[in-house]
Amino acid sequence: MPAEGEEMRISDIAAPTGVPQQAAGLLERLRAQGPRVHCITNAVAQNFTANVLLAAGCVPSMTLAADEIADFVASADALLVNLGTLDPERRQATETAVAVATGRGIPWVLDPVFVDRSPGRAAFAHTLLARRPSVLRLNHAEFAALSGSEPDGEGLAAFARAHRCTVALSGKADLIGDGLRLAQVENGHPLMARVTAMGCAGSAMLAGCLAVGDDAVEAGAAALLMLGVAGEVAAENAAGPGSFASGILDALYALDAPTLVARARCA
Amino acid sequence: MPAEGEEMRISDIAAPTGVPQQAAGLLERLRAQGPRVHCITNAVAQNFTANVLLAAGCVPSMTLAADEIADFVASADALLVNLGTLDPERRQATETAVAVATGRGIPWVLDPVFVDRSPGRAAFAHTLLARRPSVLRLNHAEFAALSGSEPDGEGLAAFARAHRCTVALSGKADLIGDGLRLAQVENGHPLMARVTAMGCAGSAMLAGCLAVGDDAVEAGAAALLMLGVAGEVAAENAAGPGSFASGILDALYALDAPTLVARARCA
Amino acid sequence: MPAEGEEMRISDIAAPTGVPQQAAGLLERLRAQGPRVHCITNAVAQNFTANVLLAAGCVPSMTLAADEIADFVASADALLVNLGTLDPERRQATETAVAVATGRGIPWVLDPVFVDRSPGRAAFAHTLLARRPSVLRLNHAEFAALSGSEPDGEGLAAFARAHRCTVALSGKADLIGDGLRLAQVENGHPLMARVTAMGCAGSAMLAGCLAVGDDAVEAGAAALLMLGVAGEVAAENAAGPGSFASGILDALYALDAPTLVARARCA
Repeated sequence: MPAEGEEMRISDIAAPTGVPQQAAGLLERLRAQGPRVHCITNAVAQNFTANVLLAAGCVPSMTLAADEIADFVASADALLVNLGTLDPERRQATETAVAVATGRGIPWVLDPVFVDRSPGRAAFAHTLLARRPSVLRLNHAEFAALSGSEPDGEGLAAFARAHRCTVALSGKADLIGDGLRLAQVENGHPLMARVTAMGCAGSAMLAGCLAVGDDAVEAGAAALLMLGVAGEVAAENAAGPGSFASGILDALYALDAPTLVARARCA
Repeated sequence: MPAEGEEMRISDIAAPTGVPQQAAGLLERLRAQGPRVHCITNAVAQNFTANVLLAAGCVPSMTLAADEIADFVASADALLVNLGTLDPERRQATETAVAVATGRGIPWVLDPVFVDRSPGRAAFAHTLLARRPSVLRLNHAEFAALSGSEPDGEGLAAFARAHRCTVALSGKADLIGDGLRLAQVENGHPLMARVTAMGCAGSAMLAGCLAVGDDAVEAGAAALLMLGVAGEVAAENAAGPGSFASGILDALYALDAPTLVARARCA
Repeated sequence: MPAEGEEMRISDIAAPTGVPQQAAGLLERLRAQGPRVHCITNAVAQNFTANVLLAAGCVPSMTLAADEIADFVASADALLVNLGTLDPERRQATETAVAVATGRGIPWVLDPVFVDRSPGRAAFAHTLLARRPSVLRLNHAEFAALSGSEPDGEGLAAFARAHRCTVALSGKADLIGDGLRLAQVENGHPLMARVTAMGCAGSAMLAGCLAVGDDAVEAGAAALLMLGVAGEVAAENAAGPGSFASGILDALYALDAPTLVARARCA
């Protein structure tokens, strides 16, 4: 590891080992502990996100009301902030929720949905990044818009170091890194892009994994691995995106540690 | 039945007879009459709730807008007030809707979701209880938070008498009572707790049953029986919560009086 | 075609030819071009509408926030305005969105949901009609409330001419006309009325077809034909409205031009 201020090269970044085994451990803890995950998310995604969390063993809550969100976040084990449908109410809810989470050391995930389509949303995402989310999860177009860098391992590492946060970049292969380590998860299925809120639900699962884990890179890789493996299992019996959407909930619910480890394609 | 003011004991409370047969009658009336049920409910639950109502034969509407909710409630046959996602808009919509419903004698159900997680929500639930909902439907944690009593038959009966309303308490066995009678429904399946908005949808069905029935205890027991039996049927073919969620809609749609009576486990 | 001002008779109105072939062409363009469809729609319908659009090959977006909707509409290929759950936020979002769409020549669809249940909603629908939507899509009760005419071919033609817009009237047989032409689509299945937001999703597909086509009557007939055929395919394997709702997404995703043409029942 280079000294502070020294330029880091991609070759210095280590791939963490044992990602599938760590994910298996986190999966068992999700089921045993049932962490509460409070979600500020868009109305399109709320129902599917709640069902994904329930299938994985978490307890979701979703209120956005100004006079009660502090109570919900304070009694939650993790927080998701998703910027989809960014109305004034959600903006205010987000400010309050992030203040409570950071004040109490509750881990939180920022998902800057569609930040590439709206300058106002990009500006708000930057102010939230300065509040240091535990993990920033986004796709290639969103990463490019937010960072101005290429959505690859090198771009991710530089951005993670500059913002001192862990980044989970979903794509054909998912990349999860904090600037020192870089995990890669190659599981998943193209039908995942044909179901609305799949990415949002992945961010919520990531929050659930943060609630039961100690390490943001491990939690990020674990969540995307669980969802990717469940997606592959679901695709084997799906006739299209409709049966796939319910199938991935079934697969997540039935997912066990041996299946996770056997199917993992990580680096 | 004891004289007014006299303490009532649990042994004085009668179990209503014929619950399955009454439920079968209400099911047929739901299909024949297609009652309009206006729902003030959270964004997480809206889609599933509407689909449950449609599967059961009801006609759902869901608007929350201040300048039109009075029209919708006035032309509805029953009203559901669910406190999930309690924002100012829903609070105002609720005030207006309850005023219209009580003024016109339209039955209404109060579902104080997550009242155990938010003091502000508990306070609002108490003001609504004072407006005398036809039925209060809630789970054990919510009942304990609202009543300060044990979530059992005795606690329910005392609370129902004090607030002069019918209470439907869902749990491993559902209890429905008004302080004089206490019905018990043991149907259902654990997967029902793994699908978001299942409880909310049960409250909406309860509103539908109130619209076509005369008795709140009968309507409450009927709605929870219909949903519980549909859940058992759905679970027989479900691979997990995803296929279960669509299966319970199929089962509700196909539910008939003989199946309801044959499968009922009531006391 | 009669001279302007002259009364037109229903016998003067031509049935367009080649509707199935045109629909097949539009379906292929949807898949090839992946048009962006921005939807202002109710919270009940958002998730299902997004999934229908994704299954058909479109890219949905759904934000309603005042300070970003202009950016989303400006970068969209078509706009849907659905009046379900008409709160002040959606009203303002609608004003902005329609201004951007008409200013840039982006086609837009107006779906005046439940206009028969709320006078305020009917009044707002009339102000929007004056802004000349590309297509007005609605059901019989909504058409009767808005037009004061019979929901048939003659009533539709008169209304379309008076308002200079194309009308897509869904019912047992769907009618699509602009006052000079009148297409009829007889595909579909009764279970479509048992899934919430099916009509809203049809309006969103119609917006998608407008994005890749040149003619509003063709686009309207194509969208309702695609959804109707997908509904028939889905019904063959559905056990009820739950499996039907996911089945229609599968069927839309798998729909190809030969199936569309072979199953079309148009006039």
